This record gives sequence, structure tokens and C-alpha cells, in this order.
Amino acid sequence: MHLSHIDLRLDYEVDAPAHLRLNIEATRTGAQTVLSETLSIEPPPVRRQAGCEPDSGNRFVRFDAQPGPLTIAYRATVRRPAVHVPATLPEVPVNQLPDAVLGDLLPTRYCESDLLARCAQQLFGDLPPGIGRVQAIADWIHESIVYVPGSSDSTTTAREVFVQRAGVCRDFAHLGITFCRALNIPARLVVGYVWFDEPPQDFHAVFEAWLGGQWVLFDPTRMAPVDRLVRVGTGRDAKDVAFSTIFGAVRMTDKKLAVRELQDERVAPARTPAPSGELRGIEKPEPVL
Amino acid sequence: MHLSHIDLRLDYEVDAPAHLRLNIEATRTGAQTVLSETLSIEPPPVRRQAGCEPDSGNRFVRFDAQPGPLTIAYRATVRRPAVHVPATLPEVPVNQLPDAVLGDLLPTRYCESDLLARCAQQLFGDLPPGIGRVQAIADWIHESIVYVPGSSDSTTTAREVFVQRAGVCRDFAHLGITFCRALNIPARLVVGYVWFDEPPQDFHAVFEAWLGGQWVLFDPTRMAPVDRLVRVGTGRDAKDVAFSTIFGAVRMTDKKLAVRELQDERVAPARTPAPSGELRGIEKPEPVL
Amino acid sequence: MHLSHIDLRLDYEVDAPAHLRLNIEATRTGAQTVLSETLSIEPPPVRRQAGCEPDSGNRFVRFDAQPGPLTIAYRATVRRPAVHVPATLPEVPVNQLPDAVLGDLLPTRYCESDLLARCAQQLFGDLPPGIGRVQAIADWIHESIVYVPGSSDSTTTAREVFVQRAGVCRDFAHLGITFCRALNIPARLVVGYVWFDEPPQDFHAVFEAWLGGQWVLFDPTRMAPVDRLVRVGTGRDAKDVAFSTIFGAVRMTDKKLAVRELQDERVAPARTPAPSGELRGIEKPEPVL
Amino acid sequence: MHLSHIDLRLDYEVDAPAHLRLNIEATRTGAQTVLSETLSIEPPPVRRQAGCEPDSGNRFVRFDAQPGPLTIAYRATVRRPAVHVPATLPEVPVNQLPDAVLGDLLPTRYCESDLLARCAQQLFGDLPPGIGRVQAIADWIHESIVYVPGSSDSTTTAREVFVQRAGVCRDFAHLGITFCRALNIPARLVVGYVWFDEPPQDFHAVFEAWLGGQWVLFDPTRMAPVDRLVRVGTGRDAKDVAFSTIFGAVRMTDKKLAVRELQDERVAPARTPAPSGELRGIEKPEPVL
Repeated sequence: MHLSHIDLRLDYEVDAPAHLRLNIEATRTGAQTVLSETLSIEPPPVRRQAGCEPDSGNRFVRFDAQPGPLTIAYRATVRRPAVHVPATLPEVPVNQLPDAVLGDLLPTRYCESDLLARCAQQLFGDLPPGIGRVQAIADWIHESIVYVPGSSDSTTTAREVFVQRAGVCRDFAHLGITFCRALNIPARLVVGYVWFDEPPQDFHAVFEAWLGGQWVLFDPTRMAPVDRLVRVGTGRDAKDVAFSTIFGAVRMTDKKLAVRELQDERVAPARTPAPSGELRGIEKPEPVL
Repeated sequence: MHLSHIDLRLDYEVDAPAHLRLNIEATRTGAQTVLSETLSIEPPPVRRQAGCEPDSGNRFVRFDAQPGPLTIAYRATVRRPAVHVPATLPEVPVNQLPDAVLGDLLPTRYCESDLLARCAQQLFGDLPPGIGRVQAIADWIHESIVYVPGSSDSTTTAREVFVQRAGVCRDFAHLGITFCRALNIPARLVVGYVWFDEPPQDFHAVFEAWLGGQWVLFDPTRMAPVDRLVRVGTGRDAKDVAFSTIFGAVRMTDKKLAVRELQDERVAPARTPAPSGELRGIEKPEPVL
Repeated sequence: MHLSHIDLRLDYEVDAPAHLRLNIEATRTGAQTVLSETLSIEPPPVRRQAGCEPDSGNRFVRFDAQPGPLTIAYRATVRRPAVHVPATLPEVPVNQLPDAVLGDLLPTRYCESDLLARCAQQLFGDLPPGIGRVQAIADWIHESIVYVPGSSDSTTTAREVFVQRAGVCRDFAHLGITFCRALNIPARLVVGYVWFDEPPQDFHAVFEAWLGGQWVLFDPTRMAPVDRLVRVGTGRDAKDVAFSTIFGAVRMTDKKLAVRELQDERVAPARTPAPSGELRGIEKPEPVL
Repeated sequence: MHLSHIDLRLDYEVDAPAHLRLNIEATRTGAQTVLSETLSIEPPPVRRQAGCEPDSGNRFVRFDAQPGPLTIAYRATVRRPAVHVPATLPEVPVNQLPDAVLGDLLPTRYCESDLLARCAQQLFGDLPPGIGRVQAIADWIHESIVYVPGSSDSTTTAREVFVQRAGVCRDFAHLGITFCRALNIPARLVVGYVWFDEPPQDFHAVFEAWLGGQWVLFDPTRMAPVDRLVRVGTGRDAKDVAFSTIFGAVRMTDKKLAVRELQDERVAPARTPAPSGELRGIEKPEPVL
């Protein structure tokens, strides 16, 4: 078990009345536990509508913003699940795939698995099925695609990344998803907060493949171990998990993100409170929104 | 109220063990009523798994097929809803859109509304918002895109259709969806059976836009009035509503489809029940009308 | 030395007054010699303008066609050069490339060498420079791209072929050209008539790379030895060497092509005429147009 | 008659031995006259090879560069031709087009006139042929495409510009060329130096269409009258007229360009020298390379 502390601050300048939908809160599904969190919006919107997508567990907040500066701050302490990935996990034959994951075989805006079908077969079709094959996909991407900030934009698809051989984390993940789907392995995108050894901290994107009846995470960028991920969004591709969707004339003016690794109090029970009484490293539990 | 009778027969040759997922049954949601239907598979599969997608109401059947000939036959009598479209219906501002339709604003595999955003603004951005604007989109497509069988394939996207100015019904619908989404009007694809005045009968694709709090159908091909549609599938684009998804070496050898318009018994009340007293309109295999 | 006999017949139906430009005559440049030829157009056009492009040596005929049937017939006997390709030939460093071939490094409509630059580097960048590297390109294409008639059309580019991994001879050649240019090896397209061991005979397309100060032919399809090629057109890509460019409403109704391999009389001088006095296999020399 | 003075300075950092080809000198063809010019390269290359492309008249300099800083300076005084464009000029029917301009109807890397053929027909096909139609093309581009620096890059094609409705001067020109070719009007790209009313000065790109037996310039950006253009390059699209083609690891570190409008002494002979005796605005004639 591990603890992460997230401290995110987004500054915007709103030029005209606008509507925003944020997807920046850690999910409360699965083994991940949100120990404490606050999401503040300044100035506070008249009406603030929070929700959770039933299938994905993605949480969102919607609100109107008036002209002027706007600041979003999200702070959370999250207990991340330990990730135990078996060394061997079989691919599930399509006729045994649950209905619910069949859709994760379909091509999407950024993952044209239909167009890259022959490529996937050539590169990975002869490998033995199973988790090793998906790992081979992640390895191939790591070795073949150069991580180049600015080499892609919000319209870049897996096919383009395959041709230009450059991209950023979401492009790496999209290509992994695309190859998996082309091989009839359900796959989807996962985004969240990751503690990198080297700054700057940023949102991160990895992918997940359905193997042996469970979702298994892969990070073709190898920028951090996947068990450092604090999950925020799960979707078919990046369009489903944008951290902000903005309708109107709104400009981001600053973004600050700190992700810290905390000691888990259960792992270190002997640790006594500091004289001041404050718990070092643990956010004082706050009312969850 | 109207009645349609569907008689579909699909012949395949299965070259190796395969898995099929069919989406050919009329939906039972909304105002549409399936009075009677049979779906037969020859040879009958050992296991046949039927289901219905919770959000869309799309129905599907999955089964394994063994090498040899395979025949699917679907016959149904369906009462179609009368379609009353108000002459005026407003667009719903994004901050009032229900969470459930927000996703219908996103770009998808075949509908790159992000790429066509400026085009949509140029062509339709200055029109008064409301149902008239979506009708203007459908009219523009009808006048600008040539219906050319064979001009597109299963990989063709709305952007390509916009450039090549040619396509078939699903391409017309994809372009309509794309323009709507680019204008912040939720839109989605609807496929089904339509009785055309001129043969051959075929599956048809139209699109639906969210206006005034309801989904409204549009057919940019103008091949048939939209109230002739027997709905089979509703989805974000064609990838969600393929009538057959085939995993394995299976070739279609023949397709026969007849769609007939029946008189509604309420319109023709003199027709008496058959002597056998059987319940018309219940699944029990019935003599087809 | 080898002799080929070409017998081409093209039938068209002209629906409205049109203008045609044909590029179907064997070139008279280099080591290739046209021993005899006739090009007939039925009905004969009022004005028939023949020419030869100064740089490429491509020959063309332009004429107006009136409504009705139109038949083009080209017959020629051509002595093909023996192709002696040294086992080793160096790539020419860019600073030593003649001005005249620098343009053959540029991307063109069908050969986006700029887009495939990183791919070319990954696949072939570490190979030792020289003819062996270009042969490796041709081999890779032969092994990676499936020859599928109908998988491409007149708009298909090398990038698309690289992604879809399927194409026909001109696509194979375009991809070879693209990889070469991306590695700073000048390359261009060559089209002509080739005698295939198996019918049907057809136009063929191969590519040529500038190595050791000369153009060297490569055929990634391996459909026939390159020394069987009767050269008709040389250009930067397929747009430069279309065998027919048609302005107007003209439909091809039939195409017949026979390519035969003849014995060269000079190579076999002892061969006596057959009793009938006719020369077996050699067209009676005809006045060249 | 008009006089322009060009003062261009390009600074590079060469990281490894490289080869450069520059196309920055004003052409000496047609009515344009280079009164004086110097092209200096610092440090001076061991060997400097100058040339002029026979068809286009484009001039180029090739040389090797060694690691370290590299500075190119080009200064020239050029008498520009007066541009008299008749109000009416006919399109030339394809069967009367000279062989030499037929190639300017073909699609190229950046101008996919084949893909945009139906669009061109829809937008401009019904307009009366002639110079007015090409002007309508330029007008449409001016009104439909937004000038957005950074919205395109060196791989952007006319099709992409048509879809994204944004670009810079070369994109505007490429789209104009593409529409012309799709309508069977030969068209090509022209680049050079232009004196803009508002800084910064930069290279500029416009296009030229073949009308009434002559090339006529059009600038869809309307950034400056076309008779202010000092022609440097003429080609089928941007790939033919790159101002620098660099083979090797060379980074541009600075670019300075000043274009000034001079009074022509022959046009204004009565103008007396300023008291200081210096000729205002006229470079002292320098030895031409």
C-alpha cells in the first residue's frame, strides 16, 4: 500500500461567460481509496454540479464561470492499490469476452485499430498470446517512438504517431491501445497523477489491457512504475478523459502540480505525532465534497 | 402509427471456427414496439447469448460458428412510432445539457468534429440556433455530397467525406453528426430498416440531434421519410452499431432484405384474430404476416 | 541483348469532345532501342501532336477526340539493354550529388519522404550505405507489403501503403522511392511493359535509385527481372508518368496487352529464315511515326 | 518600374559537417532586373557552387559548412517589373495548353488537386471561365481561411488547409494552386521578398495561374500588392522553392530581413542628390558574383 498526496492548482482567465467540466478528482473505485480531498473553485460558482460516470467511475464537476480570473485547486491524499501483476496471464478468446469489454475492441477517434490491423499482425501476430505479447507491444513502442514534447497536438492519432515515430505519453498509450485492439485484446486509456522521480510533475497517461479476466496497466513511456498512478480517468481514448472540457473563451494562465509520495501510517505505525500535533505528510482529513 | 414487416436473410460461408455478434433486431425501447419476431440461426449454435446494451437499448446475439454454411434469418413485425417534429425546437445551451448527452459532443472514429470545427462555424455558425440550423446542415449535405455507392469504405471518416464530396448513407449521417457536435449540439447515429419507394431495400443510416430536450431524426440523403425507420441501433458512430461483428474467417455469400409497409390493425379494425386464438405480437413464433 | 514485342490495344468510348495525352511509347533514350513501332488512333484525329519531354525522354501524343468509339493501338519491337548491376555500388554523399538529381530527393504527391523520415531511419538507418541498403529496402517492402489488387487507388500514397501494408506495383515502387529519399538517396519511378511469366500482362512500375553515379533499377514486387522492362516513362512519381491523361468524358471499355520475348537475331545469327520467308518473331520493320 | 532593396542575414550554428543549398537570390529572368547584389558566406566555404535551374530560373548556391557559427548575408537592389494585369483574360482550353505548362496541372506534395476536384467544381465550377474565376478563388481563400501563424508546418497540405481553415501565406497559395489545377488551369507557386506596410518583413508566397497565354500573379492573403514581389523562386509547390535545404545538423539562430522600397532614379531623374552627396536609397553598385 502506498499513499500519494496531490496538490493541483489551475489558473484561468475567463473572457466571456463559459461552462466548464473538470475531471481532476481521483476515482473512488476499485482498490484506490481517497483518504481526504478538497476541490475549491474561486470565485465559487453559483451552482456546482458533481457527478460520477456509472461505467468508468470517472468523477466530474460542472459549473458556469463568469468573466475574470478563475482558480481551481484540488488537494487529495490517496491510498493507491498495490499492483500485483502475475508473470503469466492469458489473453481471453473473443468468444469468452464479457459483453462489457467488447466495446474496448472498437476503433476510436485516436486509436484507429482498423487501419493498423496489418501492422499489428506483422509486428506482434506471431508472438505467443498472453501478457508477454502486450508487454512486447509496450516494449516496441518504448524503443520505436521518441518522446518529443510538442510533436503532437490534441488531434494526433495513433496512426500518425506510428508514422511520425514521435509523441508524448498519451500518444504512446494510444498506440498501445490500438495494437491491442487490432489483436482482439480489449484495451483502454487511463490517466491520472504520477509521482515522477524527475520534475516537472504532470498528468500522465498509460493504457490498460484485458488479460486473464482483469485489467492490467502498461506504461510504454517507462517514465514511472505503474503502481505510482493515482487514477483520475478511464476511457476508450483521450477524448473520454480530458481533465478539462471548456465551452467558451477561457485561457489557462498557469498550472501547478505537486505529487508527493507519503509514508503509509499503517506501514509505519510507530511514528508519533510531531509535538505540534500535526500529522506530517498526512493531510488533515477534510470533508469530502 | 405504422407497421413494418422485416424479412432479412444473411448467408455466410464459415471457413474456420468463428465468433459472431449480430445487431439486427429491432430495439424495444421508446415508442417502437416489436409485435412479433423470430431470429433463427442455421445450424443452431450450441450456445446463443442474447443481450441488450443498457444505455442504447441495442440488442445483440453472440454465438460461435463452425465451418460450413451459416444462415441467419430475422423476421419481425414492428409498430413504429409516429414522428411529430415541432417546427421550432431550441438548441440546449451546453450548461443545461444533461450529463448523459455530453458525451455525444465528443469526436469519434468517424466523426472528427474537432477537425471540422472551423468549417462548421463558417457554414452554419451564423444561422439562428435551433432545429432550423440542424435542418440547414442536413440540407447542405444533401446538396453538397453526391451519393455514390462504392465511393467510401469501412474506414471513411466525415473529414474525408467533406473533402471528397461523395459517400453513402452512413457517410451522410456521419457528416451531419460531425457538424452538429462542432456547434455544441449533441448528435448520434441511428441505423435500421427503412422501406424505400424504390428497391433495393437495405440497411439505412440517419442521424439524430438533441434539440429542446429530445432526440430528433434527420436524413440528409432524403431517401425516405424518417418515420419509416425501424430502429436497430443507436450509437456514437458506425463502429457502435455494426449489424455484424465477425471474429474469424467468415464470408458473406448472400444478403436478402425485404421491408414492407403493413396496414395498422387499428387503422383496419375489421381484421379478426385467427381461429387458433394465438396472441399476436408475442414472441411465440408466428406465421409471418 | 534482348528483344521485346509489345502489342497494346486500348478501346475507349468518348461521350463528349475530349483531349487526350498518351504516354505509351517506348523511350528512345539510353541503351534502349526501338527497332520498329506503330501507334494508330482510330478514328484518326484531325491534329496529332507528338513530343518528347527533354529531361525524362518520355514521349507523348496529344490529340482531340470526338464522341464515339476510339481505339488506340501501339505495336513495337524494342531492344532492351542488358542490365549489369555491380555487386557493390556506393551511395553518393549529398554534397557530391549532381544538381540534376537533387530534385529526386524531394517529397512528391505520392512519396511523402518527409513524413516517413523517422521510419526510414529506424528501419534502414543503421545499415551500411550502398546498393545493399537499397536492396534491403526492396526486400523489406517485398516481405512487409501484401500485393492486393484493388487495395489502393489513384490517390494512394506511400504513407498510406506503409500503414495499410497492402498495394500494387506502383505502391511498392512509391514506398521504395520514399524510403530512399528519406535516406538522401535520389530515387524515381519507372514504368513500362514487362513480360511476366504468368499472365495477365500489364503495365508495370518499378523504381530507380541513384547509386555510384548511375540509376539502378529495383523491383520490390519481384514479379519479373528488371531487365525485362521496356521503359515508357520516368518521373518523380506516378503523376508524372500516367499512360493516359484524359480531359473529358471518356471511358475505357477494353484494354489488351501482349508482351512477348523475342530472340535477338544478332545473338542468334545462324538462324535461317523459315521456308515461308517470314521472320519468326520479328515484326516487319515499319516506318516509325 | 520600381526598385526594391533587400537586406537579408541568416545566422546558423553548425553542429556537424553539413551541406547547404540556398535559394535566396532574386531571379534574373523575365522583366525583373538585379541591379546589384552580394551574397556573402562567413566563414567562406572552400568550394561554392552556384547555378540556375534551366526551367524555372531559380538560382542556387551549394556549399559545405564546418562546425561553428555560419552567417549568410544577401543584399540586392532589384528593379521589379510593372505588373499590368488585363481586366479580362481567358482560360486556355487544355487542348491549346503548351506542353510546358501541362505539368502545372498535376497534383503535387502540397497541392492534392485530385482530392479536392469535387470541392473545386462545387465552389467555382459554375463561374464563367477566365481571370475572374481565379480572382474568385483568391477571394474565397481570403474570406474562408484564417491567417494564423503556427497553424501549419512544413508538412501541411492544401487539403489540410481546406479542412482546418487556417494557415500562413504558403498555405493560402497552395490552396489557390490546388483549386486552379482542379479546374484545369495551370498554376504554380512563387516565393520572394515583399515589402509589407507593416513589419515584420518576411519571405512571402503567392501563386500564379496561366491565363490568356501568360502567368498572372494572385495573392490570396492580400498582405501586399503583387507588384511588390521580388521573385526568388518559382515551382510546382513549396518543396521546389525552399529558401534553404540543409543536409546535416544545422540550427538557425537568427534571421533578419529588411525590404525597402526605393525610388527609381530613371523614373525620377530630376531628383537632386541630398546635400551630403549620398544617393538616398540606392546601394552603391557592387560587383555581382
